[in-house]
Amino acid sequence: MSEPRPASRKIYVQGSRSDLRVPMREIALSGGNPPLRLYDTSGPYTDPSADLDLKRGLPPLRLAWIRGRGDVQELPGPSSVYRRSREEDPALGGVRFASVRRPLRASPGQRVTQMHYARRSEVTPEMEFIALREGLPAEVVRDEVARGRAIIPSNVNHPETEPMIIGRQFLVKINANIGNSAVASSIEEEVEKMTWATRWGADTVMDLSTGKNIHETREWILRNSPVPIGTVPIYQALEKVGGKAEELTWDVYRDTLIEQAEQGVDYFTIHAGVRLPYIPLTAKRVTGIVSRGGSIMAKWCLAHHQESFLYTRFREICEIMAAYDVAFSLGDGLRPGSNADANDEAQFAELDTLGELTKIAWGHDVQVMIEGPGHVPMHLIKENMDRQLAVCHEAPFYTLGPLTTDVAPGYDHITSAIGAAMIGWFGTAMLCYVTPKEHLGLPNRKDVKDGVIAYKIAAHAADLAKGHPGARDWDDALSRARFEFRWQDQFNLSLDPETAREFHDETLPAEGAKIAHFCSMCGPHFCSMKITQDVRDYAATHGIAEETAAIAQGLREKAEEFRKSGGEIYRRA
Amino acid sequence: MSEPRPASRKIYVQGSRSDLRVPMREIALSGGNPPLRLYDTSGPYTDPSADLDLKRGLPPLRLAWIRGRGDVQELPGPSSVYRRSREEDPALGGVRFASVRRPLRASPGQRVTQMHYARRSEVTPEMEFIALREGLPAEVVRDEVARGRAIIPSNVNHPETEPMIIGRQFLVKINANIGNSAVASSIEEEVEKMTWATRWGADTVMDLSTGKNIHETREWILRNSPVPIGTVPIYQALEKVGGKAEELTWDVYRDTLIEQAEQGVDYFTIHAGVRLPYIPLTAKRVTGIVSRGGSIMAKWCLAHHQESFLYTRFREICEIMAAYDVAFSLGDGLRPGSNADANDEAQFAELDTLGELTKIAWGHDVQVMIEGPGHVPMHLIKENMDRQLAVCHEAPFYTLGPLTTDVAPGYDHITSAIGAAMIGWFGTAMLCYVTPKEHLGLPNRKDVKDGVIAYKIAAHAADLAKGHPGARDWDDALSRARFEFRWQDQFNLSLDPETAREFHDETLPAEGAKIAHFCSMCGPHFCSMKITQDVRDYAATHGIAEETAAIAQGLREKAEEFRKSGGEIYRRA
Repeated sequence: MSEPRPASRKIYVQGSRSDLRVPMREIALSGGNPPLRLYDTSGPYTDPSADLDLKRGLPPLRLAWIRGRGDVQELPGPSSVYRRSREEDPALGGVRFASVRRPLRASPGQRVTQMHYARRSEVTPEMEFIALREGLPAEVVRDEVARGRAIIPSNVNHPETEPMIIGRQFLVKINANIGNSAVASSIEEEVEKMTWATRWGADTVMDLSTGKNIHETREWILRNSPVPIGTVPIYQALEKVGGKAEELTWDVYRDTLIEQAEQGVDYFTIHAGVRLPYIPLTAKRVTGIVSRGGSIMAKWCLAHHQESFLYTRFREICEIMAAYDVAFSLGDGLRPGSNADANDEAQFAELDTLGELTKIAWGHDVQVMIEGPGHVPMHLIKENMDRQLAVCHEAPFYTLGPLTTDVAPGYDHITSAIGAAMIGWFGTAMLCYVTPKEHLGLPNRKDVKDGVIAYKIAAHAADLAKGHPGARDWDDALSRARFEFRWQDQFNLSLDPETAREFHDETLPAEGAKIAHFCSMCGPHFCSMKITQDVRDYAATHGIAEETAAIAQGLREKAEEFRKSGGEIYRRA
Repeated sequence: MSEPRPASRKIYVQGSRSDLRVPMREIALSGGNPPLRLYDTSGPYTDPSADLDLKRGLPPLRLAWIRGRGDVQELPGPSSVYRRSREEDPALGGVRFASVRRPLRASPGQRVTQMHYARRSEVTPEMEFIALREGLPAEVVRDEVARGRAIIPSNVNHPETEPMIIGRQFLVKINANIGNSAVASSIEEEVEKMTWATRWGADTVMDLSTGKNIHETREWILRNSPVPIGTVPIYQALEKVGGKAEELTWDVYRDTLIEQAEQGVDYFTIHAGVRLPYIPLTAKRVTGIVSRGGSIMAKWCLAHHQESFLYTRFREICEIMAAYDVAFSLGDGLRPGSNADANDEAQFAELDTLGELTKIAWGHDVQVMIEGPGHVPMHLIKENMDRQLAVCHEAPFYTLGPLTTDVAPGYDHITSAIGAAMIGWFGTAMLCYVTPKEHLGLPNRKDVKDGVIAYKIAAHAADLAKGHPGARDWDDALSRARFEFRWQDQFNLSLDPETAREFHDETLPAEGAKIAHFCSMCGPHFCSMKITQDVRDYAATHGIAEETAAIAQGLREKAEEFRKSGGEIYRRA
């Protein structure tokens, strides 16, 4: 279960206190090349020395930090009516996570959010952890959080997380969605999908379960997750009223928020921007409302002829969020579901409202990110980012794709990786993955991996384009290994070493081929890398190294001169 | 062998002459929706009425047009010394394509290129065919070719092609590379890869074979290919001198050009821009020279202390190209092989030279496109396009990817589809595909398909972003089918119907599920599309349709007003 990645070992960078140790993955290289350290989302699951037990959950890494701040109280039991009913139901003994801690909540009059601390100029252990993880000064972390330009999803009831940050000054993050539905999947599968997704690089995981035992599934996931967990509470609230949107009430919803906050969910998608007057704006769309949360609230609004309770009760929601440090992911309930509907009036009307709500949340020191589309052709992507920054006051953007064409169901990890890479470059802080099964069915293990890999590519391509310090070290290490025919290093440095090795071995399976100075694409005589090496060797033998150094100073005229002076330059020994 | 795509039939749009019939794929839709017509690269292989025989080859569609122009002569036999030796070799009887036509060549003093005709203001049948195929006026086609902004690869010895155009006013095209190597693959496999690649949408195919029987393999491919075929003649020339770059001569190369031109190759990649003074500029690179052709010529230049014969003999090469209408694909022998080397001095020095050579080729009425990189991070992609347009006088750009990160071998169809979509949007006319096996091995059938699909996505996303007329019809048809739960239509409209259907059926295999108003992702109660439909039904029942029409005129204020007037708007029946 705790198996390291190939040629990799888990290392820990020590922080200023003994319990602050930042995990990283170090890849060993051959030929005297220094090892490469990479950001590591996989948690203790890739540390062979970790003592793991899914039934017990991960160690509560942050618990001492949270308690040490002296601003939380331990509750005698859960506040949620629903949760209490689940805990009292003997029929659920078989699916229930056994060892539950008592919930924590802000002491009266306290706000326990990272934004609150940041605004008080306090560098929390979470911020220091992130600074070491990202290779940036802790003060940058604190300042970005204080200004609302970055968030640290870190519910006081989810001390198992290894702190991470979502903001455009930092590495672009990716989210993987998991979740069973009424039709398929089980608790074990969902927990396994979470550890699988983080193994490949998911920075956060959203549990979008809509089937039965949502509460218990989430508990298992939270207790075993080293990354922040997000949810869409309206899904569960809807379950509680038998799937009838019009029967949703503020009381049911409120109890759901508290139920999930006390379990430890780190961010909530809340579609508070789906306002009654915006709904008719979607009537002429090709694909109407495609957000589940958005369509649920639209139905409620129409059925009641009232403004959404998510909007009217927003301040009450903020108070709940502040008491546990749950971050908002303000949902884009009116996002376009097709290229035809991109950047339309409904979408941007909602975005304006999300900007208003951001200010209100910040008034409560609650962290906020903003969800974005969806399906957007390439030429309309940048407008999404620019408007979001402008109207949402630089709160971090968290986009689904966007998908740049609608014509490729089965390949929407690719149609959307294109849009995701671009919008990541433009400034999106976190990319919500799309799997090949999007629009078609529930992702299985392979789909989760394919989605994560496509999004790690998009996020890393964005980091490179943004010039994130150190991002290119990884590419350069791999490219050098490629050029020097260090095949094993090339595989080990790959995003997916196993697949790279397997593809190579399909045509040249012999172990010897992995150290050979050619591959099956060109064969021994045609290999361009080998020929370049010959060229360099030739140049070295014939003493043109010094001339080359001069040329590297950058003058093409110089090269012309060399050409004209002919034999002198490439003089034979 | 001639199997149509699902729910599709081959139709032919009749042109101005009886032998000018433009094939298209028409997808039937359910529920009274009109069928959708798509551009079709698959040739007669998807026409059940076609009488096909690989041993006989495809019918010579363009032969009457070529002969009708009265400017070609039929040669008594092949001009190439090498080809004659192959034809006389009894040992090759088993691999040789049997029914060979006599080669055609321009009559003395004639130029038989589409550019020549276009400049004479002549709309050829090829141009008319393309105009119908692209849905644009024939005069646009002619004008773009005359100005050198588009090319029609159409060797007089490859009359089997269905004419197509490469230029930035037209649909973005994709190329698939096939080709055996010394290590793997056979003639049958290569011919099958060609028909397979065009079935999924390859607009041209490059035969990059480097193994034995290159000549015979190419003949089989050409005689059976409905799309233009490109090659890199230096690969075969190198084989002829035993793989020793320094032993290459102009005579060997010239004979190879003529050999391939008389077989019918439609475009040649020629690395004439790899000049002697540029080679030292690559010395400090992370990955040196990664183009095979580029590295071969670099080695030759250094070994001889001479300027490349591709450069010094360029006018003679142009004369050969003009006599058969072979188009130049001016190779980027110094393209970057890693993000570290992108947009460097070596790359741009070569590009300047390609611009010079373009002018020379145009002086001979020879069609030209320019090859581009390679490995380029997103923020450096646009500079490639802008400089290419400027220094190469708007000759069409033909890029490999570019790959936007180096860290994902095994997934380079994705790392590069990101760059390809972007550069396609910026103006690249044709995208050379990259398969998942790039850097690792030779692509098999699945890899070819995965590469083609990823690049059809990139090309179509670019067409959408460029606002190509009609491009969005496909997306809209699919999105409507999705919204209306016409599952079969959604599958049939997909880029890969079989995969879409298979993914869907994994979780909901029952036939009934394909017409159900939900899918396995959300289950029956949560489906956002279903809820939107409920919202619309509700609105219709309660008579808000007229109000909605008013709102669609675009005023959010109007919506606010509706909200304020409450019950009146959403009045119950």
